[in-house]
Amino acid sequence: MEGPAFQCLPPWVKAKLSPKAIECIQKVHDWVENECIPAEEVMKEQLKKDRWQTPPLMGELRRKAKARGLFNLFLPHHFKESPGLTNLEYSCCAEIMGRCYWAAQTMNCHAPETGNIELLAKYCNEEQKKKWLQPLLDGTASSGYSMTEPEVASSDPTQIACRMERDGRDYVLNGRKIFGSSLSNKDLTFYILMACSDPENPNKWARHSMVIVPVNTPGITHVRNLDIMGYDMAPEGHAECVYTNVRLPAENIILEEGRAFEIAQGRLGPGRIHHCMRLIGQCERAYELALIRSIDPRKRPRGKLIGEFDSNIERIAQMRLEIDSSRLVVLNAADTMDISGNKAGKYVIAQSKILVPSMAARVIDECMQLYGGLGLTQETLLPEMWTYARFVRLADGPDAAHRYQVGRAELQAAPVFREQHQRYQDKRNELAKKHRLQSGRALL
Amino acid sequence: MEGPAFQCLPPWVKAKLSPKAIECIQKVHDWVENECIPAEEVMKEQLKKDRWQTPPLMGELRRKAKARGLFNLFLPHHFKESPGLTNLEYSCCAEIMGRCYWAAQTMNCHAPETGNIELLAKYCNEEQKKKWLQPLLDGTASSGYSMTEPEVASSDPTQIACRMERDGRDYVLNGRKIFGSSLSNKDLTFYILMACSDPENPNKWARHSMVIVPVNTPGITHVRNLDIMGYDMAPEGHAECVYTNVRLPAENIILEEGRAFEIAQGRLGPGRIHHCMRLIGQCERAYELALIRSIDPRKRPRGKLIGEFDSNIERIAQMRLEIDSSRLVVLNAADTMDISGNKAGKYVIAQSKILVPSMAARVIDECMQLYGGLGLTQETLLPEMWTYARFVRLADGPDAAHRYQVGRAELQAAPVFREQHQRYQDKRNELAKKHRLQSGRALL
Amino acid sequence: MEGPAFQCLPPWVKAKLSPKAIECIQKVHDWVENECIPAEEVMKEQLKKDRWQTPPLMGELRRKAKARGLFNLFLPHHFKESPGLTNLEYSCCAEIMGRCYWAAQTMNCHAPETGNIELLAKYCNEEQKKKWLQPLLDGTASSGYSMTEPEVASSDPTQIACRMERDGRDYVLNGRKIFGSSLSNKDLTFYILMACSDPENPNKWARHSMVIVPVNTPGITHVRNLDIMGYDMAPEGHAECVYTNVRLPAENIILEEGRAFEIAQGRLGPGRIHHCMRLIGQCERAYELALIRSIDPRKRPRGKLIGEFDSNIERIAQMRLEIDSSRLVVLNAADTMDISGNKAGKYVIAQSKILVPSMAARVIDECMQLYGGLGLTQETLLPEMWTYARFVRLADGPDAAHRYQVGRAELQAAPVFREQHQRYQDKRNELAKKHRLQSGRALL
Amino acid sequence: MEGPAFQCLPPWVKAKLSPKAIECIQKVHDWVENECIPAEEVMKEQLKKDRWQTPPLMGELRRKAKARGLFNLFLPHHFKESPGLTNLEYSCCAEIMGRCYWAAQTMNCHAPETGNIELLAKYCNEEQKKKWLQPLLDGTASSGYSMTEPEVASSDPTQIACRMERDGRDYVLNGRKIFGSSLSNKDLTFYILMACSDPENPNKWARHSMVIVPVNTPGITHVRNLDIMGYDMAPEGHAECVYTNVRLPAENIILEEGRAFEIAQGRLGPGRIHHCMRLIGQCERAYELALIRSIDPRKRPRGKLIGEFDSNIERIAQMRLEIDSSRLVVLNAADTMDISGNKAGKYVIAQSKILVPSMAARVIDECMQLYGGLGLTQETLLPEMWTYARFVRLADGPDAAHRYQVGRAELQAAPVFREQHQRYQDKRNELAKKHRLQSGRALL
Repeated sequence: MEGPAFQCLPPWVKAKLSPKAIECIQKVHDWVENECIPAEEVMKEQLKKDRWQTPPLMGELRRKAKARGLFNLFLPHHFKESPGLTNLEYSCCAEIMGRCYWAAQTMNCHAPETGNIELLAKYCNEEQKKKWLQPLLDGTASSGYSMTEPEVASSDPTQIACRMERDGRDYVLNGRKIFGSSLSNKDLTFYILMACSDPENPNKWARHSMVIVPVNTPGITHVRNLDIMGYDMAPEGHAECVYTNVRLPAENIILEEGRAFEIAQGRLGPGRIHHCMRLIGQCERAYELALIRSIDPRKRPRGKLIGEFDSNIERIAQMRLEIDSSRLVVLNAADTMDISGNKAGKYVIAQSKILVPSMAARVIDECMQLYGGLGLTQETLLPEMWTYARFVRLADGPDAAHRYQVGRAELQAAPVFREQHQRYQDKRNELAKKHRLQSGRALL
Repeated sequence: MEGPAFQCLPPWVKAKLSPKAIECIQKVHDWVENECIPAEEVMKEQLKKDRWQTPPLMGELRRKAKARGLFNLFLPHHFKESPGLTNLEYSCCAEIMGRCYWAAQTMNCHAPETGNIELLAKYCNEEQKKKWLQPLLDGTASSGYSMTEPEVASSDPTQIACRMERDGRDYVLNGRKIFGSSLSNKDLTFYILMACSDPENPNKWARHSMVIVPVNTPGITHVRNLDIMGYDMAPEGHAECVYTNVRLPAENIILEEGRAFEIAQGRLGPGRIHHCMRLIGQCERAYELALIRSIDPRKRPRGKLIGEFDSNIERIAQMRLEIDSSRLVVLNAADTMDISGNKAGKYVIAQSKILVPSMAARVIDECMQLYGGLGLTQETLLPEMWTYARFVRLADGPDAAHRYQVGRAELQAAPVFREQHQRYQDKRNELAKKHRLQSGRALL
Repeated sequence: MEGPAFQCLPPWVKAKLSPKAIECIQKVHDWVENECIPAEEVMKEQLKKDRWQTPPLMGELRRKAKARGLFNLFLPHHFKESPGLTNLEYSCCAEIMGRCYWAAQTMNCHAPETGNIELLAKYCNEEQKKKWLQPLLDGTASSGYSMTEPEVASSDPTQIACRMERDGRDYVLNGRKIFGSSLSNKDLTFYILMACSDPENPNKWARHSMVIVPVNTPGITHVRNLDIMGYDMAPEGHAECVYTNVRLPAENIILEEGRAFEIAQGRLGPGRIHHCMRLIGQCERAYELALIRSIDPRKRPRGKLIGEFDSNIERIAQMRLEIDSSRLVVLNAADTMDISGNKAGKYVIAQSKILVPSMAARVIDECMQLYGGLGLTQETLLPEMWTYARFVRLADGPDAAHRYQVGRAELQAAPVFREQHQRYQDKRNELAKKHRLQSGRALL
Repeated sequence: MEGPAFQCLPPWVKAKLSPKAIECIQKVHDWVENECIPAEEVMKEQLKKDRWQTPPLMGELRRKAKARGLFNLFLPHHFKESPGLTNLEYSCCAEIMGRCYWAAQTMNCHAPETGNIELLAKYCNEEQKKKWLQPLLDGTASSGYSMTEPEVASSDPTQIACRMERDGRDYVLNGRKIFGSSLSNKDLTFYILMACSDPENPNKWARHSMVIVPVNTPGITHVRNLDIMGYDMAPEGHAECVYTNVRLPAENIILEEGRAFEIAQGRLGPGRIHHCMRLIGQCERAYELALIRSIDPRKRPRGKLIGEFDSNIERIAQMRLEIDSSRLVVLNAADTMDISGNKAGKYVIAQSKILVPSMAARVIDECMQLYGGLGLTQETLLPEMWTYARFVRLADGPDAAHRYQVGRAELQAAPVFREQHQRYQDKRNELAKKHRLQSGRALL
């Protein structure tokens, strides 16, 4: 466990890695360092030529990664294709993947594929699995996830309004969706979509269903592609789509009507951790660029290297601290899921989600600042990194929503502490009597 | 002085506005509200068709604005074309212009035109003025400014290395420049360029010269356009250019050899104030969007409007406070220049430059957050606003450089305070004697 | 208007100062510099000897200040004792007073005296004025203000519960109060107290009354003195008091029953501005100490003066910027009150109250940090300064309460902006038609 | 491992705890909850009566703790008195100790005792150990540590100037020291003092020595006690002392002349971790008080409990996140020391020292704010907690010094990353050729 693949890992994490995981992390590291990062420019050029199609190089790298056993690393134990990594072990891989924006995709470990695969595996029947899951695992199909809507507050998903009605052997969809992958992507195969199938159900958590929507289904209108901070995020992209009497065979429903939240719940935890770890990998890369800038012999404002100013030395230490402490938070969340399950990890996952994206945006912004004007241009990867971090800060709900959730849970412990405090106070009063003090108001 | 054109102005500023300025501010307000903001979408569409040419609508609006007497409002008193506004009065106009990204250009008040016009007017001979300045004032030519270089620390401009050598009746340029307007812009006429004409001069502030470079001069290679956070900033753009034996007639030099810093010094102050005020105008617009979002009846997470959450109410108050206090800082800087001259305003200008761009980025970022995912897309103007604020945070030098400059100047007062403190101490010792105290160490 | 008394004032403020104000500011400056600051140590020593009595030196200085015409400077025009300063002019004095913690008191310009004097002058009848107001103006009496209670959320003053009932020619008080001046102070003469006289009144703003309570009234129990961050704030102090059947003659009521909020409203605005300006004066003093430390020849970590580290140079610039911009906010609030009245100034005052105390605590904390361990000891004034700033951050309500108030007021403008936005949109649609664009969703 | 003693521990830490450690943590928890916290008021009262003597209750609790086997828990394995806890395990105890300001002292685990004991054990000869170390271990003596000086920049300890000269069989000390425990403390036995024994030594790290100074040695003048933010920190306190020809027997030197830095180096690491963990324990206690306040039925501003405002719910989540992530950083540092030694842990320890004290001050400050004015008074423990956190932020060097150290170390890796980047670039060029791209400037 020597070398750069492991150097950022805290000792307690290293001690928990299985030999298989160690080997896997090293392989992921070598793959990203040797096959992905050096190919970033070529990938960019191929995408320039045809923005809405998976670039040939991506196809090539995916085949190669699959051949090397680097496909589907995120899969939990119970999959036969799984390499058997724990959440903690896979998190170490995810950080390394994050060093190159698209590296996860070469290993079929990218969002929303990972979440979709878990979801389909957990909740589909055998026939559905054969039809929709297997091609994803094989890397021969590509999927999206569509929930957010422009007309409601989607951070409160019980408000999702896209209507889904049973009509004979079909479901009929009507509504408007934003985000999720773009239909412009010629390689997209299907969506998993959340819709409202029972708006009158008194239980608001039982009104929605999940359904599989093949991209070529008639009635779907692609309204526009959505940029993220000016980037089209091609070839996956984001889009606005209108569904007008879109007919789907009833067998496309997942589990059954009204169970969307049950299905969604299992989906998000690990995915958030993956996002966070990839962002940390990205931060490390940005940080390395900052260090390189710090010793760039051409840059000597007022006669000193950038890294010779003590203000910059402090900035570097601060970035190091923020990245390292964030990593500890996420790895602990992953470990908590391994030990006590995804549900127990709910709040540590939420904490990761609050902490990491804004930390990443802040750190990358500081790196841009150290690069001067150049740091904002396409000469560095920093603007794209910042944009990804900024996007993740909103994906799966804004910080405020997660803070609200954590804060609410915390407040449930308040009565326990009030009682504990009362016990302190009772003893204090006893002691005051014993010591003949004139005890005043309870000391808080 | 009623109505939205004036409502953000502090009373002391209103009291200082001349009747002419009041009329002018109102006209600028009406122009921006009625002719610019509603045309944003059309402008965007025209630019999509031909990115590297001034859109027809811009030409049309410039003609119209000129006809209405809204051209060159920034010009100081001594210009015959000047409307006679003070820095403070023009600042009020600049804020309103900032509400629409390109509104300043319709009024020929955009960067780098404003700085170039001031520079040419102040330092050119009559012949040069006729040839280069007048077309800018008339709005029939378009200029750039080129100083930054990739190979040195340009935040320390004494390091500018692009070589300029006299050869007979010509100057010959060799070097590499980044930023400044792009040669892709078909409407660009000339650059003002800073080069090193006397690298061996023992006075490092006398090594550089300013020279006028027409865009079609042979020997200039346009290497690439530079994106800013993914935006190409067309049609003006930014670029990297190589100068290889570029020959310029000697009469293109401004003032004379070695006087670049003298020339540059006068250029930046007002320009920084304009940038800051436009950013504040932009913040007001972003803030209005946040308020609109706060009462959007479609957005009711957990059953309440966004503006009904007290966390958001506090966020709104905090944004309001940050925008208002920043405006006071910039308006005070403008007023200081009016009263005591640009030189006296040096440090208040630097403070504006430190404060406003990062405030603006922070406020706009908060507005994006209130919009959820939508706030990052082209459905709102917020991503472009943020990008402009982020860019200005680096243009004309990073925050750290300005803080260093201010801090250094402040430290020069330290000995005065030490003496004052000594005087306190001497009197304290006297008093201690008088009151028969056993005086200890000097109280700090 | 040369010299240190004026050097921090922005030009627009200088231009507004009357000759009388200029003279007054200079006199206040000379007084504070020559008579107060050098006496800080003696004052401290005298207080050590008898903590709960006005030190003899304070009495002496008050007599001297009165003789010099420096008494009651805060009084508005309509007082015959008023020096006739505007809020803006007095604010300039208040900043200078703030340089020495107790200097305002030598000039009878200290809290809560200033608020009480204004209140009594505005709402008392002639007899009351003679009895209670005149001694305060003469400096022969000393008053407190008591509102906060431990058993309710006093930041919402409609909840004040201390009961006040009419009984014959008396009012009878029962309740518990905290904060306000301590009864330990042997020189305290009376309180103005807010109590609930009509708890059943359906209008919750009409339930409370203000009443004058002489300190020697039977039935008042002094429960304990309250420290603020460990400081007893003697001789004024803070305390917890219990009122048990405290009988007051009915003529001690101010105005009449149920009008406490009407009375209170007029009280707070100017007082908050005074507090803020004094905090800014304190920040200037802390900042001067930081500059002195920066060139202390004994302190050379790693061989450089503290002020030679560029990180510290940046810190100094940042402090300078924060103090200067805060001053602009408060002075603008004072000016707004002068021009448009206290009510119009409500939200700019609230902004000052949000901004200044936390700015001051942050700046002073940074100065302490620059002093190393010494900065936390009684060898510097910084710990007491910090404590005062921290206290003011809560006095008159926490930041959050003020932000809520400002944010709520701001949100009332949201519909206006929505309409304005709709107008943009209508024109945009027209233009889109004209230019034959296929206009999509409204651009935000 | 159920119950409140363990509930804050991350799973990976729980998994590493030995049965002995689990038992020990539980015992510490019970001790602090049942014997210390309820006695806080009595301890305070006893201290009021005689501030400069260990209160009788402390003596009693120390005897009781010793009898229960809770003495000297911090001692590493190699001590015969050691309970055998790892740094990680002891850290869990230290957090719990931190819940009560003086609880560590009841268990003989307080600073500077812990550092002194380690130092004496490691570097003293047998005779010295018998005389000075054993009484500390037994709890019958009490020691201080004195290094800081007012006349130099003590954050750079090579500047320590207090002179120590050999004279026959004695060493003679002359100089001035601040901080360290106060001589007012009647129970203090001796100091360990750092002095300059060889000022001309060309190796600046070999100029200083460590020496044991009994408190009653003639020639020591106690100049004054130093408050910390107004608190006298009695009975230990801080003081300024002058050493005038203080004669010490030569056998009081530790190790030998010139080896002070070697000795000091081993001292600080674990001590910093202890401080940080105690601060985290303190934060948890402050946080509990905030939760209690959040449901205080008497406090209902605008009709809602404090914990029903979503702004406060977010504040609580944010505090939770900051405390939890800081704990992970410190526990990881402790674990790193266990696995790779104190030296390897150097930078993670420094990160803890940068992160925790300022986090703690921020969190406690937020809790004070939630308590309103009451939060600043002696009615809560918050002001003392804040003061301790603020003090630790400067003790052992200010944040800036630690950031500088970490940043410098990080920059040493910069050339490695430059090489790695060059390798990327070389491969990129190869690939560009293969794909017939016209490769431009190296992508950063």
